[in-house]
Amino acid sequence: DLPFVLIAGPCQMESRAHALEVASALQAMTQAAGVPLVFKTSFDKANRTSLSGKRGLGLEAALPVFAEIRESLGLPVLTDVHEASQCAPVAEAVDILQIPAFLSRQTDLLLAAGATRAAVNIKKGQFLAPWDMPHGVAKVESTGNDRILLTERGVSFGYNTLVADMRSLPLMARDTGCPVIMDATHAVQAPGGLGGASGGDRAFAPVLARAAVAVGVAGVFIETHPNPDQAPSDGATMLALKDMPDLLTVLSALDALAKRHPVHL
Amino acid sequence: DLPFVLIAGPCQMESRAHALEVASALQAMTQAAGVPLVFKTSFDKANRTSLSGKRGLGLEAALPVFAEIRESLGLPVLTDVHEASQCAPVAEAVDILQIPAFLSRQTDLLLAAGATRAAVNIKKGQFLAPWDMPHGVAKVESTGNDRILLTERGVSFGYNTLVADMRSLPLMARDTGCPVIMDATHAVQAPGGLGGASGGDRAFAPVLARAAVAVGVAGVFIETHPNPDQAPSDGATMLALKDMPDLLTVLSALDALAKRHPVHL
Amino acid sequence: DLPFVLIAGPCQMESRAHALEVASALQAMTQAAGVPLVFKTSFDKANRTSLSGKRGLGLEAALPVFAEIRESLGLPVLTDVHEASQCAPVAEAVDILQIPAFLSRQTDLLLAAGATRAAVNIKKGQFLAPWDMPHGVAKVESTGNDRILLTERGVSFGYNTLVADMRSLPLMARDTGCPVIMDATHAVQAPGGLGGASGGDRAFAPVLARAAVAVGVAGVFIETHPNPDQAPSDGATMLALKDMPDLLTVLSALDALAKRHPVHL
Amino acid sequence: DLPFVLIAGPCQMESRAHALEVASALQAMTQAAGVPLVFKTSFDKANRTSLSGKRGLGLEAALPVFAEIRESLGLPVLTDVHEASQCAPVAEAVDILQIPAFLSRQTDLLLAAGATRAAVNIKKGQFLAPWDMPHGVAKVESTGNDRILLTERGVSFGYNTLVADMRSLPLMARDTGCPVIMDATHAVQAPGGLGGASGGDRAFAPVLARAAVAVGVAGVFIETHPNPDQAPSDGATMLALKDMPDLLTVLSALDALAKRHPVHL
Repeated sequence: DLPFVLIAGPCQMESRAHALEVASALQAMTQAAGVPLVFKTSFDKANRTSLSGKRGLGLEAALPVFAEIRESLGLPVLTDVHEASQCAPVAEAVDILQIPAFLSRQTDLLLAAGATRAAVNIKKGQFLAPWDMPHGVAKVESTGNDRILLTERGVSFGYNTLVADMRSLPLMARDTGCPVIMDATHAVQAPGGLGGASGGDRAFAPVLARAAVAVGVAGVFIETHPNPDQAPSDGATMLALKDMPDLLTVLSALDALAKRHPVHL
Repeated sequence: DLPFVLIAGPCQMESRAHALEVASALQAMTQAAGVPLVFKTSFDKANRTSLSGKRGLGLEAALPVFAEIRESLGLPVLTDVHEASQCAPVAEAVDILQIPAFLSRQTDLLLAAGATRAAVNIKKGQFLAPWDMPHGVAKVESTGNDRILLTERGVSFGYNTLVADMRSLPLMARDTGCPVIMDATHAVQAPGGLGGASGGDRAFAPVLARAAVAVGVAGVFIETHPNPDQAPSDGATMLALKDMPDLLTVLSALDALAKRHPVHL
Repeated sequence: DLPFVLIAGPCQMESRAHALEVASALQAMTQAAGVPLVFKTSFDKANRTSLSGKRGLGLEAALPVFAEIRESLGLPVLTDVHEASQCAPVAEAVDILQIPAFLSRQTDLLLAAGATRAAVNIKKGQFLAPWDMPHGVAKVESTGNDRILLTERGVSFGYNTLVADMRSLPLMARDTGCPVIMDATHAVQAPGGLGGASGGDRAFAPVLARAAVAVGVAGVFIETHPNPDQAPSDGATMLALKDMPDLLTVLSALDALAKRHPVHL
Repeated sequence: DLPFVLIAGPCQMESRAHALEVASALQAMTQAAGVPLVFKTSFDKANRTSLSGKRGLGLEAALPVFAEIRESLGLPVLTDVHEASQCAPVAEAVDILQIPAFLSRQTDLLLAAGATRAAVNIKKGQFLAPWDMPHGVAKVESTGNDRILLTERGVSFGYNTLVADMRSLPLMARDTGCPVIMDATHAVQAPGGLGGASGGDRAFAPVLARAAVAVGVAGVFIETHPNPDQAPSDGATMLALKDMPDLLTVLSALDALAKRHPVHL
């Protein structure tokens, strides 16, 4: 089994300079830790709790920045798409199209993403069971595209709360054969927990990341920011950039151990 | 308080003839019961569990049928929309645009629906709390459109299960001032419960409808079909058309009682 | 079907005078409404969240008061038991032994309660499904006692939250043949929600009571107090005594309607 | 931080010979792995789903066997108690009294257990949040006994399902200062999932054990049996004894790593 990949970046693309700064910093940190990096950021937060929440730079402004990050830093890039028509243009500028969790059952979006031949990362809906995911995989595969990742980001647990079920990780891997990613920062969200925005507690993101890596995953997804408390979205759960190197050290060591002793279901 | 409205029809538009047949039958039944009717059917089931599930007639074929039902039967019509670009054309042919539960936080869809000036029925996401809904209402209201309905259709409760929280009904009414609808047939679904399709048990739909009406609601949403076991979608939960008159009788009586004794929060 | 029974009283027996005062008041109210009454109060709150919570008068002091209420007012009395050895002495003084929800799977307690020949009210554990209850019924029935009631009091829904699933009511009735009771005040608790005590919101108790009666139940369980905000336990959820008559009026009317149109599963 | 302790043994004491056989086998395995062992088995399964489920040897027959295991093998022993009156006699024969999850709020049982001066392991109720546990700890501490362990064994998640929230482990440790144990086999139960008995899937127990150890725990609780499929209780979730050595190898390595890099909340 391959070492785990880190998919990381700020929740939303705040500016070209901000994206490049975080991408460069993450590249240096992951190279030092020997961890492959995929840079992630969103051009549009299309499902903010409140209308007044900032949504990001937008598709047109973001695509050139994605392209620049790929070229200047040589990093693969992931971003999320929200309507079928966005898939083709976005796939020109990034390596992995991400299907947001709320949209994980939207057939047309999955088909359009698959048709681009980009890799497709399907986030498991907060309302789905792990054994529901082969249906989403089959939708993408019907386009002839089998470069599919699945991401666990927590499941609804009462009101305004998510819980991460660690059984989901090997279960989805077994049932689909797809690489499975643990999204450690969204899974610690308290959706709607701040009234007009999602709350949560970033202190638990390393808890879930460690647990998942010890079970055995293809990757870990972490939103991170130079100054999370000032971020325009998901500030309660993003990790501070400066805390990433220590986390990568322990995750790398856990991953090596887990990969030597794979879980068998 | 006004008597409750019934929003009803088959899950998907299977054909022009089928839609007209069910609409006419429902019209006769509701007139006999003295219950106002809104006819509901979907032109596209855009989030079927499985790719192989039938999706309905499609937008182009369905719009003339919606128009015909309005004109020939004089019934208001409701249907759901899945992408922002569908809102304007669909609003020409129907009275109420419905936001599917999975899409209930998609800002652009809510804004586009609001901008049409049609009434907008927001289904509460399976991942949302009742007190999260004012944010969705505010998105639609920002377009200057205040003709908004909210529908409870159950909340995620473990895997492949929904539960209907009756507290949600007066709570959403109090917090938004919007008419609140109980969707009695989707709330008894077992999402993904049949493997490649949603299961559930229609026997419990009258249970939830009675409970909701006794609490006090503006309307009840029920999917119904001449032969549910042969229906291309949601067959496990749709009520047989022939069972509607008895249900309407008891719901009408409960409604009259509930409206004389409103719940105060 | 018979009209619904009200099981009601203060959460704990605070004093002889207090118990008699509430029992008399409830008797007058229910006679006016034509609703049969079972008086309920606890001699010991054996599972308070916090050690510092008051627990009630205790078994020895309470038994004569129970006997007095039965004799002087002619009311049947219900109270809960916590260890097998309490069942026999308590059954001398009351009509119905209640098994607390947390203890609903304790075999010895169910057997001891059954052996007394008193009626036994099993509260469904917050961790149980409706279809789990026939096992508890079978435990009591093994003693030759078939005077068994089942009570829905909400099921765990995330942390510190309960939800009342209305499907549970006819389902338990169908699967066991037992009278089914809706506990409307415990089901609106937020367990542990006040830190060292259970919180909740009494405003929703009438919501759940109305919903349950409209579905069709054998009884409604409501804790009530002359001054809930000063009560030593469950103050957040008990209804004020003065609000009972209006609630009984609407419940009686809903019940008559529901019993004329029984739900068929 | 100290290395993790294994609390293990068969669900119920089936016979003296069986208990000694498993205890000896576990002792050899844990010595080879360098893991401290506490032997666990139940003298009475007091809350079986069904009356017909076997309950174990019983208190009187079991106490001499507990004493023999302590003396002949030198192992500390843990068993669970169900009524306050059992605490004193059982504490003569074992080192740790365990409070079953369903009984985790029974004040008298917690006080009686504390009063023995034995260590007390409180299993977190399936209906409790991690932040509710300080109240149970305070009940035991009020007896002057501060030798308290807390065990996570999953929380109710819909019907007949549990989920293990990894956040609970460091949260309880932080809020109480108590050693926290992960019960990896009960947390993968499907309560009532076999109709008259609890189901579940033992394949996921190593998943939860690995995850918990990587987060950092004081111990892991695992029920194990020479032949789980023939066991009288919890057969679906107990691990086969022969699979323990490989699991201990990976848990030990993960534990060493986790203890070098403790989680900070």
